[in-house]
Amino acid sequence: MNLYSDRMQALIDELSRLPGIGAKSAQRLAFHIVNLPSEDVRRLADTMVEAKTKIRTCRRCCTLTDQEYCPICSSPSRDPSTIMVVENPRDLAAYEKTGRYEGLYHVLHGAISPALGIGPSDIRLKELMQRLQTEDVKEVIIATNSSLEGEATAMYISRLIKPTGIRVSRIASGVPVGGDLEYIDEVTLLRALEGRVEL
Amino acid sequence: MNLYSDRMQALIDELSRLPGIGAKSAQRLAFHIVNLPSEDVRRLADTMVEAKTKIRTCRRCCTLTDQEYCPICSSPSRDPSTIMVVENPRDLAAYEKTGRYEGLYHVLHGAISPALGIGPSDIRLKELMQRLQTEDVKEVIIATNSSLEGEATAMYISRLIKPTGIRVSRIASGVPVGGDLEYIDEVTLLRALEGRVEL
Repeated sequence: MNLYSDRMQALIDELSRLPGIGAKSAQRLAFHIVNLPSEDVRRLADTMVEAKTKIRTCRRCCTLTDQEYCPICSSPSRDPSTIMVVENPRDLAAYEKTGRYEGLYHVLHGAISPALGIGPSDIRLKELMQRLQTEDVKEVIIATNSSLEGEATAMYISRLIKPTGIRVSRIASGVPVGGDLEYIDEVTLLRALEGRVEL
Repeated sequence: MNLYSDRMQALIDELSRLPGIGAKSAQRLAFHIVNLPSEDVRRLADTMVEAKTKIRTCRRCCTLTDQEYCPICSSPSRDPSTIMVVENPRDLAAYEKTGRYEGLYHVLHGAISPALGIGPSDIRLKELMQRLQTEDVKEVIIATNSSLEGEATAMYISRLIKPTGIRVSRIASGVPVGGDLEYIDEVTLLRALEGRVEL
């Protein structure tokens, strides 16, 4: 005996595939969605498809955007001589929320991980090196996570950049070891920025 | 400065409207959705709209279904002489998962709450009374929540049914199985004492 009708079960199944949504939450969300006004459900569905269709990576920093260049790269008030390298757009958002970093970013979309078979060519590293050739960059701040992969990626990038003479720094270990930038409070993030050391 | 492009922000906003999805989860879900293959996003969106469009209430028990009658009401193996009255389809699912209840259900879609302005005519009570006139029902088990509203609803329904001569019962309230007395509220402890059964 099925607990739910086929379409309800299909919706619950789809929702439970999302990260952080367990069986109970999927059930609760499904009932909520079915009880919403039709236009709300259609708008939610359309927004998803629209975002998926239109969002691509910024031509300059590789973060996700629906324009050719992201709002940060397009802003005349940002300092283009500093690039902060982060693993993903959520980490960019975390630093952006501090409201104190004025430079640009570069989003790698991952970190080097031999264990997971992710090599230097699998992340947006080539794009970073191209920027260093064409843009007038004075400092690259490496803000990958302080996990094993993040540290390895930081070392790899610093060794790659050093010969160019551009200053390379790493955010300070104010960030707890094993911590994910996304979940760290702004004060700690700022402390880590201020205490960055040259590599 | 916006942290995200417009379409990303729109998606995050839509997702944060869902129950139990905070700002952080909405962000995480949005990035996940944008990184999914296009066909997965479209399937998720379509499933939502499809469920919303096709799901309605069962003509007999008022639970949510995509057919005229729900799987339980359509099943020849269920005992139609017993009706369990629950507040919503999730409560029905909870009892159904026990796998031990063999009767039918009636879903009220709410509980009487003068504080929230929800009266007897705002829940599916008329439909229940109509069933009692046309179906051969021997017992109505009231399984509304043991909240203030649930109890008031139970009292109201029992007074309504009593004159018909049909047996009305209420699920027991007491200490949950495996519950530690030390952590259980006094009202529940008293209820459990009052409802004690001879061994």
